[in-house]
Amino acid sequence: MPQLRLALAQTNPILGDLAGNAAQIVDAARRASEAGADILAVGEMALSGYPIEDLAARPSFLVEAHHAVVALAKKLQDHGLGELVVVVGHPDGPFEPRLMGTSNAPTAIAQNRASVLHHGHVQAQYSKHHLPNYSVFDEYRIFIPGDELLVLRLKGVDVALIICEDLWRDGGPVARVLEADAGLLLVINASPFERDKDATRLPLVTRRAVETDTIVAYVNIVGGQDDLVFDGDSVVVDGHGRILARAPQWVEHLLVVDLEVAPASDTPLPDHVSRVVLADAAPVQLPLTSDIAEPADYREQLWNALVLGLHDYVEKNGFPSVIIAVSGGIDSALCAALAADAIGADRVYGVSMPSRYSSEGSRSDADELAANIGFHYSVEAIATMVTPFEEQLHLTGLAAENIQARVRGMSLMALSNMSGHLVLTTGNKTELSVGYSTIYGDSAGGFAPIKDVPKLLVWELARWRNAFATSRHEVPPIPVNSIEKPPSAELRPDQTDQDTLPPYEVLDAILDAYVTRNLGREDVVALGFDAETVDFVTRLVDHSEWKRRQGAIGPKISGMAFGRDRRLPITYRPNV
Amino acid sequence: MPQLRLALAQTNPILGDLAGNAAQIVDAARRASEAGADILAVGEMALSGYPIEDLAARPSFLVEAHHAVVALAKKLQDHGLGELVVVVGHPDGPFEPRLMGTSNAPTAIAQNRASVLHHGHVQAQYSKHHLPNYSVFDEYRIFIPGDELLVLRLKGVDVALIICEDLWRDGGPVARVLEADAGLLLVINASPFERDKDATRLPLVTRRAVETDTIVAYVNIVGGQDDLVFDGDSVVVDGHGRILARAPQWVEHLLVVDLEVAPASDTPLPDHVSRVVLADAAPVQLPLTSDIAEPADYREQLWNALVLGLHDYVEKNGFPSVIIAVSGGIDSALCAALAADAIGADRVYGVSMPSRYSSEGSRSDADELAANIGFHYSVEAIATMVTPFEEQLHLTGLAAENIQARVRGMSLMALSNMSGHLVLTTGNKTELSVGYSTIYGDSAGGFAPIKDVPKLLVWELARWRNAFATSRHEVPPIPVNSIEKPPSAELRPDQTDQDTLPPYEVLDAILDAYVTRNLGREDVVALGFDAETVDFVTRLVDHSEWKRRQGAIGPKISGMAFGRDRRLPITYRPNV
Repeated sequence: MPQLRLALAQTNPILGDLAGNAAQIVDAARRASEAGADILAVGEMALSGYPIEDLAARPSFLVEAHHAVVALAKKLQDHGLGELVVVVGHPDGPFEPRLMGTSNAPTAIAQNRASVLHHGHVQAQYSKHHLPNYSVFDEYRIFIPGDELLVLRLKGVDVALIICEDLWRDGGPVARVLEADAGLLLVINASPFERDKDATRLPLVTRRAVETDTIVAYVNIVGGQDDLVFDGDSVVVDGHGRILARAPQWVEHLLVVDLEVAPASDTPLPDHVSRVVLADAAPVQLPLTSDIAEPADYREQLWNALVLGLHDYVEKNGFPSVIIAVSGGIDSALCAALAADAIGADRVYGVSMPSRYSSEGSRSDADELAANIGFHYSVEAIATMVTPFEEQLHLTGLAAENIQARVRGMSLMALSNMSGHLVLTTGNKTELSVGYSTIYGDSAGGFAPIKDVPKLLVWELARWRNAFATSRHEVPPIPVNSIEKPPSAELRPDQTDQDTLPPYEVLDAILDAYVTRNLGREDVVALGFDAETVDFVTRLVDHSEWKRRQGAIGPKISGMAFGRDRRLPITYRPNV
Repeated sequence: MPQLRLALAQTNPILGDLAGNAAQIVDAARRASEAGADILAVGEMALSGYPIEDLAARPSFLVEAHHAVVALAKKLQDHGLGELVVVVGHPDGPFEPRLMGTSNAPTAIAQNRASVLHHGHVQAQYSKHHLPNYSVFDEYRIFIPGDELLVLRLKGVDVALIICEDLWRDGGPVARVLEADAGLLLVINASPFERDKDATRLPLVTRRAVETDTIVAYVNIVGGQDDLVFDGDSVVVDGHGRILARAPQWVEHLLVVDLEVAPASDTPLPDHVSRVVLADAAPVQLPLTSDIAEPADYREQLWNALVLGLHDYVEKNGFPSVIIAVSGGIDSALCAALAADAIGADRVYGVSMPSRYSSEGSRSDADELAANIGFHYSVEAIATMVTPFEEQLHLTGLAAENIQARVRGMSLMALSNMSGHLVLTTGNKTELSVGYSTIYGDSAGGFAPIKDVPKLLVWELARWRNAFATSRHEVPPIPVNSIEKPPSAELRPDQTDQDTLPPYEVLDAILDAYVTRNLGREDVVALGFDAETVDFVTRLVDHSEWKRRQGAIGPKISGMAFGRDRRLPITYRPNV
């Protein structure tokens, strides 16, 4: 059987930074070449970052991207890497607009492409056929679908090339690849992480490999981009469903693997499939053992996704540091621990802002957190700032509760204005769901690290992180008391969350049904919940949509995050 | 030629309120019946409201909508309106999901439908073929496209039925309708207003009528829904391009018109077209002169769009009143005038919040505005609330400027918490574009009436509104001084906007190129602007995306509004 040494590079692109991303790819090519690879693939849109959103409708951006691909091919050649076949994902265009209606509409003028670079030139191109337009994806909005398939012949084997969603669709390009009789199916991806995604992705790759009796090589990008986190987890599976190589999650990585590929055949090509024959690269010299990374426990995966999402938001946007209000409660403690893991405790600023309702326990829990983690810590009592509002505007009740949260939010923003810190807002998904937060108060901030983490999972991750520390003989970051005490917003005397909300076990379960699974009120009740509680909770969810629209972004880790994943009206009167 | 009396009803649905919207339709049917109409059409999704967004993925919502259509047919019959043929738009489902990838994705299970109600039953249904997925539309995300056409035969004529986007596409369903030889093409729509939309819509309707030598009847909904305003402007055009009837914009209206329609022929139907024969209604009795409304001047159209958008947000969400910070400047003056026009001055609360930097002129301009409009007016000097922040947190520079704006925003929110007012935020599109605002300060609020109005248009509308008042012998609402003085945020001594920003004539022109037309930096410079100014402005636009994401919604009146119309990343490093 012919041999092929394949390299897959998980790069972490910065959106729009074509020159910087190209440099990452050249670096991966250099390392792949040193490892004796014949062919290197990087992820979908690795040259531009993903998702490019409506930049796809900006002609000049597409022209730049187009030139960047041509320049990359030349640069690889100039660096003595021209022998290596490099497959790179990027946007291309502008093309004739896809006709879609009124004149002002940003109709698609771009394609989502893979280019094959060899000997200093773009030798072949493939355009994604299937454009996901569900969940967080808007690709049908911005791209023109391709309709031609591509098979590369090199070193006596045929390699078919597809992009991400193409692999998911039954009867899609994969079926035609089978007719073309390729020995290797190369799939480049920008596939965002969510919980248990590996329980979907790996079986899919395996199924396609077995169905087509073909080796399937799947390469994904890595890194955070606004509300998405890409986890890598690139993998190669053979036609018997065996994993031949697998890259670790969360990190940039070059995976190199030797493949025995079925020889190219002279099967006539189906319609709309073309074959490009590439000059042979040097034969593989060295035997190689490739890595098979083992994915971690789901809590570790989630933790790493949150850390990477926060890290990349801070670094890619150039913030020197972050600032967090530490209340002594579990949410802010978890966020501080995440921030320290993401960028180091010396770039984390915690501020305790006690009010007259803050318990002594809260203050000491915040102190303990600061000591455990070692971030910069200061205390600013808010009474002197709160009182003038109460007196001048005669505030009582909810208004008086909210003003405390808002004074804290404003104080953080003011400290951010003075020092350039990114303000982290510490609301969890449960709070966001029911609007249990003060807009422009505790919800103020540029990034929300745990906005997709429901309350029960907040506790679970806190316990996991502490245990992880213990297992490494480190100080557990999160005070036990912050985990174990009843949660409270501490905006009035002796308040607890459960004065207002159902127990979190019930609340999170109802939210899972109503928000994540998008069930209607009747269907939620049919699951066995108290009807009055369901009405109460679903009404809160509906009525707080306006707040969520004004909320900070944060990393998606579930199958249904707030933001572009869940698009619902603010003005909405249910028919019940 | 056979005669048909057609009624088109512009209703104003509330999203999700199936029962209330059905009652609107029954009322329109009663009036249409009294006017002797044979057939009544209401707009696309008139039964549910539009856009329903991801409610389309909630099975229980679709089931409810389905039942609501059946119930509406029966209700019409019960009210003695069963003879009238009623065409109504609504979502329907759930159907088998359109296969679109991963398991958690809200794949489409709904169709965007028109149902034909007659004699107490749903007699026929049509599903929209072409699903707009550009600009503010996400229909390919949520709907399964239809592929069968429908022709209704009644009173000896054939009526073809399509939905909105179907009309826009060359070679789409319209071409097949031509083959089916129908005499009347009925199009139901939910087509949002934007500036000069009538300059696109009417020529399109006319072109289709002439192309197909068919009468085209176009009915649109009316009203505000979050960031969209539907303007009505329903129209009937004959095969010679003559307007036979046209409804006024902005108001609920029943348009009734007598049509002489080509008789039904026995042309064989093309594939995928079916004909439903409806029992004949009573013959038309009375001669009728139908209205041809004349659209207003563009400034009046824009004004009315802003008023209706604000009015419906307030009313559909049940706010008793609105509150506005009146600074003496033009933006807040325009918002106050809009609010008074929308809901009456007695439901508008204006608060002047002078600081040490507020000029005497600003205070007196605010006083004059209050006197002109007659809203509830109070003054709250902010110094006592600002000083504690400055002292405790040692604020200087930008932090000290921002804290003033934030104290004002918090004060408004506190007053809102006390009294239930909706807080209006008064930022214009130019400010939003370049981030010339304080997040959680002047940008705080639930609705942003002029967020899609650039600064030059702010002045133009202010002048227009004053002249309109003068022409009606009313007091011009906006103080002349607010219009004529140089704009200033008044956050430091003698500040004006032009200390920081280019002149508004230049700035708005660059923003039109970069934001509205989505040109790249080079292409903007090529229009003749100073390169350094272009770099400065485009960088401000890119860097303030995070603020816009957290901004309030407001009515779209341009071809490219911020929000779902323009989707760009926050984390973004341009390649220049």
